[in-house]
Amino acid sequence: MSTSSHSYPMSSGDDQHSYIYNSSYQKACIDGNEEKTRRYILEKFDLLNLKSDLNTLNIADFGCSIGPNTFHAVQYIIDGVKSTHENRLVPLEFQVFFNDQPNNDFNTLFRTQPPSSKGEYFSFGVPGSFYGRVLPRNSIHIGHTSYATHWLSEIPEHVCDKKSLAWNKYYIHCNNLIEDVTKAYKVQFTKDMRGFLEARAEEIVPEGLMIILGQCLPDGVPHFETWQGMVVDMIGDCLMDMAKLGVTSVEAIELFSIPVYFPQFSELQREIEQYRSFTLEMMEIISHPLEDIPLSNKFMTSMFRAIFYTIIKEHFGQGVVDELFDRLAKKLTKYPIDFKECKKHVNYFMLLKRK
Amino acid sequence: MSTSSHSYPMSSGDDQHSYIYNSSYQKACIDGNEEKTRRYILEKFDLLNLKSDLNTLNIADFGCSIGPNTFHAVQYIIDGVKSTHENRLVPLEFQVFFNDQPNNDFNTLFRTQPPSSKGEYFSFGVPGSFYGRVLPRNSIHIGHTSYATHWLSEIPEHVCDKKSLAWNKYYIHCNNLIEDVTKAYKVQFTKDMRGFLEARAEEIVPEGLMIILGQCLPDGVPHFETWQGMVVDMIGDCLMDMAKLGVTSVEAIELFSIPVYFPQFSELQREIEQYRSFTLEMMEIISHPLEDIPLSNKFMTSMFRAIFYTIIKEHFGQGVVDELFDRLAKKLTKYPIDFKECKKHVNYFMLLKRK
Repeated sequence: MSTSSHSYPMSSGDDQHSYIYNSSYQKACIDGNEEKTRRYILEKFDLLNLKSDLNTLNIADFGCSIGPNTFHAVQYIIDGVKSTHENRLVPLEFQVFFNDQPNNDFNTLFRTQPPSSKGEYFSFGVPGSFYGRVLPRNSIHIGHTSYATHWLSEIPEHVCDKKSLAWNKYYIHCNNLIEDVTKAYKVQFTKDMRGFLEARAEEIVPEGLMIILGQCLPDGVPHFETWQGMVVDMIGDCLMDMAKLGVTSVEAIELFSIPVYFPQFSELQREIEQYRSFTLEMMEIISHPLEDIPLSNKFMTSMFRAIFYTIIKEHFGQGVVDELFDRLAKKLTKYPIDFKECKKHVNYFMLLKRK
Repeated sequence: MSTSSHSYPMSSGDDQHSYIYNSSYQKACIDGNEEKTRRYILEKFDLLNLKSDLNTLNIADFGCSIGPNTFHAVQYIIDGVKSTHENRLVPLEFQVFFNDQPNNDFNTLFRTQPPSSKGEYFSFGVPGSFYGRVLPRNSIHIGHTSYATHWLSEIPEHVCDKKSLAWNKYYIHCNNLIEDVTKAYKVQFTKDMRGFLEARAEEIVPEGLMIILGQCLPDGVPHFETWQGMVVDMIGDCLMDMAKLGVTSVEAIELFSIPVYFPQFSELQREIEQYRSFTLEMMEIISHPLEDIPLSNKFMTSMFRAIFYTIIKEHFGQGVVDELFDRLAKKLTKYPIDFKECKKHVNYFMLLKRK
């Protein structure tokens, strides 16, 4: 019952290039907000308002990827629910629905599930795009998604169309340097965010919660000024260097644009507030535990490789990947980015309650 | 929440050697019983006895493997429910839980799901051994398993123990030639069948159904007299030929015994009847649509390769697999088995109702 959008899962398996080994940046943010997650569940989630004969509590992680972050996030939610309702007469059983695109590596997800979780909850893999329905009506008590909704359901219209004003000719992502490109991305983002919330509004029970973690731009800061935007622009430069050597072609680059969009904080807030099925209980910028730690070029290269591996392999071919990220590492050494002093994305924590 | 038994999934992926391409024998039997499945659902399954506000009907296939058989089986059940309850005011949404061991190839299962099914039901992958709990209490309305419960949760105790009377020294499976070996297998089978039914009794709602399809031996027929038993004995002979050439060792063969047990029909019936949480509504031998079609040696070789690939690879090493099944094909040509005239397994259809 999912939409059939194209998808580019995080790098699969569990080797040195996999997302499993290269998602500590995202993990730090999920772990760093454990207390917040617990506290808000304690304040906002009232099991007593749910059916009195409830004996199973259903949690979903939308866009779970392959772990380990999803296992941590889910555990924090369960711990939160348990501490809120420890005096309950009927013990709760937990069901956890791990959702991601059908081409996500569910085998690795299942294989790497912490043994301790097996006595804690029943696990389900749910294949399908979260921009459409993936679960039955009124079936989920607490939904969660982290670092996933910036991936659009498809490449925005016209950004790969040579005849359009929104053609993103010189760049491989939305860096906010071309106004028509930004507009095209924003249109797609708005459509997708609505699709996401409409689907969740059907799936989440009244009074149920939806927790959204992610990154956005600080108000007034364009993407190209952040180090995250700079690194992706640098990946584009490396591709262009490779085109000059004939490893890929300029045309392939001109027709490539990554379906990722980072709205500014207030823009995201306005979008969410417009949607009437949920109350926006809170939305705040949270600090990132790694913010003050100098990030090495090696760490950056590995992280971006794990994130973009699939989409780059699919568009440019497997042969391009290794060389591209070798070149990125070298370019980062030659033209160092001051990750600490640079402008950067902010991380947000958002709590929605189903009306 | 599953037990941690060792498992040997069917051959993964979707190439020529995969279970997907080599499960038509099992498929024929599932398809051939479509009418029966529908009819029994019509007769035995009364939604009105379930909660009146039921809007989601939950179906589980235990030991689903990687398709396509599981998709057919599930569709027949849904069609059966729909035809029984077509005049319902609240339309039902269906949830289907595809259960198999965590090392089953769920990626292929999700990738090969028929597009039509995506509008029909919500899909979930459920990793875990069906000999333990894999789903919450009272969560399933109709359970199904086909051609799966003859796989034991582990190799029976002592059959690989050189000092035991139950050491299955000369054979690689339970062919009923050594009484102590048969006894050891039977003990494990009884334990596993009880584990299976105990777990399902917790998961299936009162009045819910459990459909079990499978193969067993006709009463009074030992396994070694059936063509199925003969083929596995022949695989053992091929391994012994390879040991003589040093490709594998006699000791490796002596310590190998496939954890599969086929009870006789009445033995299985007695076992099921002893279990008080379910009523055995019916149990009958069903005809197999391929019974009267001459089966080619090529078909046989491919089918047994897909079924035993994982366990043989794991015990003897990847290098043994190709040669072993090449040798099996040649041996079957040299010493042909008359599949049509030979004794054979019977296929059964069993319907249990939760008390």
